[in-house]
Amino acid sequence: MRIALAQLNPTIGALRENTDAIKDHYRLGEKGGADLVVFTELALCGYPPRDLLLYESFLNRERELLTEEVLPLTEGSGPPIMIGATHRQGNRLYNGAFILEHGNIKSIHLKTLLPYFEVFDEERYFTRCTDRQIEMLGNLKTAVTVCEDIWNDRDFFPNQLYDVDPLEWLFTEEPRLLINLSASPYHLGKHRLREEMLSFLAKKYKSGIIYLNQVGGNDELIFDGSSLVFNDRGELLYRAAACDEELFFIETDDLFQPAKKNVDPDSDDIGTVLQLLKLGTGDYVRKTGFSRAVLGLSGGIDSAVVAALAAEALGPENVLGLIMPSPYSSRHSVEDAVELAGNLGIAYRIIEIDRPFETYINLLNEGEKPLQDVAEENLQARIRGDILMHFSNREGYMALVAGNKSELAVGYCTLYGDMAGGLGVISDLPKMKVYELAEHLNNIKGKTIIPRRTINKAPSAELSPGQKDEDSLPPYEVLDQILEMYVEQNRSPAEIIEKGYAGETVEQVVLMVDRAEFKRHQAAPGLRITSRAFGRGWRMPIARGYEYSKKV
Amino acid sequence: MRIALAQLNPTIGALRENTDAIKDHYRLGEKGGADLVVFTELALCGYPPRDLLLYESFLNRERELLTEEVLPLTEGSGPPIMIGATHRQGNRLYNGAFILEHGNIKSIHLKTLLPYFEVFDEERYFTRCTDRQIEMLGNLKTAVTVCEDIWNDRDFFPNQLYDVDPLEWLFTEEPRLLINLSASPYHLGKHRLREEMLSFLAKKYKSGIIYLNQVGGNDELIFDGSSLVFNDRGELLYRAAACDEELFFIETDDLFQPAKKNVDPDSDDIGTVLQLLKLGTGDYVRKTGFSRAVLGLSGGIDSAVVAALAAEALGPENVLGLIMPSPYSSRHSVEDAVELAGNLGIAYRIIEIDRPFETYINLLNEGEKPLQDVAEENLQARIRGDILMHFSNREGYMALVAGNKSELAVGYCTLYGDMAGGLGVISDLPKMKVYELAEHLNNIKGKTIIPRRTINKAPSAELSPGQKDEDSLPPYEVLDQILEMYVEQNRSPAEIIEKGYAGETVEQVVLMVDRAEFKRHQAAPGLRITSRAFGRGWRMPIARGYEYSKKV
Repeated sequence: MRIALAQLNPTIGALRENTDAIKDHYRLGEKGGADLVVFTELALCGYPPRDLLLYESFLNRERELLTEEVLPLTEGSGPPIMIGATHRQGNRLYNGAFILEHGNIKSIHLKTLLPYFEVFDEERYFTRCTDRQIEMLGNLKTAVTVCEDIWNDRDFFPNQLYDVDPLEWLFTEEPRLLINLSASPYHLGKHRLREEMLSFLAKKYKSGIIYLNQVGGNDELIFDGSSLVFNDRGELLYRAAACDEELFFIETDDLFQPAKKNVDPDSDDIGTVLQLLKLGTGDYVRKTGFSRAVLGLSGGIDSAVVAALAAEALGPENVLGLIMPSPYSSRHSVEDAVELAGNLGIAYRIIEIDRPFETYINLLNEGEKPLQDVAEENLQARIRGDILMHFSNREGYMALVAGNKSELAVGYCTLYGDMAGGLGVISDLPKMKVYELAEHLNNIKGKTIIPRRTINKAPSAELSPGQKDEDSLPPYEVLDQILEMYVEQNRSPAEIIEKGYAGETVEQVVLMVDRAEFKRHQAAPGLRITSRAFGRGWRMPIARGYEYSKKV
Repeated sequence: MRIALAQLNPTIGALRENTDAIKDHYRLGEKGGADLVVFTELALCGYPPRDLLLYESFLNRERELLTEEVLPLTEGSGPPIMIGATHRQGNRLYNGAFILEHGNIKSIHLKTLLPYFEVFDEERYFTRCTDRQIEMLGNLKTAVTVCEDIWNDRDFFPNQLYDVDPLEWLFTEEPRLLINLSASPYHLGKHRLREEMLSFLAKKYKSGIIYLNQVGGNDELIFDGSSLVFNDRGELLYRAAACDEELFFIETDDLFQPAKKNVDPDSDDIGTVLQLLKLGTGDYVRKTGFSRAVLGLSGGIDSAVVAALAAEALGPENVLGLIMPSPYSSRHSVEDAVELAGNLGIAYRIIEIDRPFETYINLLNEGEKPLQDVAEENLQARIRGDILMHFSNREGYMALVAGNKSELAVGYCTLYGDMAGGLGVISDLPKMKVYELAEHLNNIKGKTIIPRRTINKAPSAELSPGQKDEDSLPPYEVLDQILEMYVEQNRSPAEIIEKGYAGETVEQVVLMVDRAEFKRHQAAPGLRITSRAFGRGWRMPIARGYEYSKKV
């Protein structure tokens, strides 16, 4: 049997466009001689459709397109389709894998395990289904599953998140093939985990595995694609494109014999991060209806890296850099920003913020002189935000936010100032990773893209004379390690101190994180790279006691 | 038996302070002759603790305070305690009601129904417990439940959200008393629903009911308290304070005889809304460590109502109004704002934004003349945001946002401009309700608080010459009705049009709502008044197709 697999990049809720893409790829699969064409989880909606699922009319429209446009493709000699879609029974909504054959719905396999951790909310929308059945694809006994259903193996994971494992039930019937329709967003380390787990399952169950994953950026989530095929020995036979659409074919015979050639296992590195951020940026800009982006260039490393990512994602001709020196900016900042723009081939404008700053000071300060307090630091950042948004509003640029995760964690950023914009491109990238990415960008281009001085100089917000980040923050090497433990691993201050970090530093950092919640609540959506990004997967109270921080 | 019930206002995560309040109220209960002292759901954490629950050290500290400080109170002659707290078994976390007696944990009743709709995420943290047992309180067979556990009656609700009903199991044992520990946030209509349901349950099961609810504002959620006691005939015996802490006592004998006097049923009205917004505003400001608030006064009704609420919540001496006329402001705007400040007795400052606006225009426009486009409208709003935040940052005021729900729904507001601030006080109040609240404020004070002209004049953002809201929006009477159907009731455009609204208007409104998602994503937390506020209970994709809107 020849199976066509469509790794597509849907836009959430764009039912018409997504259906058209499904139909196009079905025809390509048919033309390629497929006996079955497979699509990803919730392929018509795009994943995650979120609260669109609460609208009955949305569900009706999805079902209408499925039955009136997708289903008829399989009439006559058209090959069957396997596709993810919602399924209603009375008041209950299920997340299903549909098998469409000869113009009929042959069967529906409903998702059992509904993730409700990290960024996921599936319990909000769907009912768990505990009935499972084996599908016969021709003569091939097949277990058809949706995404999370395969992620609860008791021999692979030290802890199980769910009480049941659908694979255990399904494999009592001894299927020879497992197909999984996924929409599984990326985070650092996921490639290796995914491949190891799938290989383990193939070996454990002596089953071929076809893992088909959605690709593309949807708000903060980046789906990497990287669909996988394993034979029943757990050998990786094929890996589809990371970060791109792909239609590929597999012969099921290949699943039951030794691999003809080795596909090396994948483990993600800074190159993966680059690819993903490029995909996430490009998709967010385009899927919100923009084609161009504007950002402030400070001469520092964060905005330099974001400018480079934007140029990669949108083309340098679609990126505008605003260089907005203040009275406290050093001369080299403007030079470095200009050099960066030249290296990238993006347009730039220099707009000094001295005059608006003076006007505000005259208006707001009694002595009409700067007081150089935090309010004035924020004011400078907000003037830049105003100017950035002015370009966005007047000329139709998406404004990009250049803050990194370390800053956002401790609140070293100004609401409505440097936080202003539509997308936080590196807001889930710790500062030390930003450096790594800068070096990587220079390496792969074989020339200096991010100016050396930008990489080498001490980070500074340049909002007061001679200011350096490290005046008020621990060195980033230390800060990032503490943040990883506190934010991503849910460790307490006491546990972090036990690992050898200075008590005072840890307490300071934790308190800064806790107190900056009000800023993060109003942050732009930020592309997710780690398992715990701020945003939809980080749900913290704002008005709160600090007992926890103080109890070290 | 005499039971003391403590309706308290905890701060989320303030384990130390919340424990102290519990201990104080236990002693008051003991002094009042109580045989049992009862506290609300997750009383030490405060509800909802959200992702604090993912920190093991937080859970450990909660348990430590429960066992080392609360439990010992019951040693010797101290009466038992019933209190909500988390409970771990292996990897599983449960939401429990603990009975503490003679220095021991006598029993734990674990929550079965975990809400995961609207603003709730309990499946993210807790495991459903399906074991239930009856508690003997003295000789009184009692069903002890936590919040949602009582909200699934098949005879009361047309649809059941859950497959099981813990009360059905529990009442097979024929308990005579039902105690429910709640932390149940308010929304419009909830008072009546709650009282009708509890009365129904009392009659159905011929059981007395003690319903104890948390009080206080926690971020956007406002818990109204209003704890209730019903006898086994379904008669309401007692209703505790709405929007305030209260320790009250009941004699269980009273639960099994006809009511001695009638307590009138409660249905909420604009007076309830006023009380709740006052509570929510005051608590948010205080629980984030502020005591004073600043807001812009435009002369319009929204900022007038928010100023009045702030004055009520914080005292007029703690509220500062900034009157920031632009070149396009009408003279009456300043007069009306000044009159309002006088009526309220709050301080105000007049700061014209002409000069910063001119400075920006000189800097950004080639001809150095205003173009009067949307970018410049936003710019004016952002200058006001800058000034507002300057006062907030320099002088330690919480900045309040005055936008209403109708504006936020259709995006008739400026990111970082009039949307700037720490709390959206009326961001879940539709414009027509804002009018109602303004009239109510004037009525209860018996004099003009909100100036008549402010109420009577046509709403305008005054960002371009002669601008009126209704130039770009349908009349608010119509807009609010469409929004209620689309946003709160999840109706489709087609369904709304069927009810007799103009197709073009409905399509325009729905498209505006959909397209404004990026603004709402960065909005300040806003006090929840309706069942569907924007914010944590509204989870929509930003980058999305509009198929749904267009399919009318």
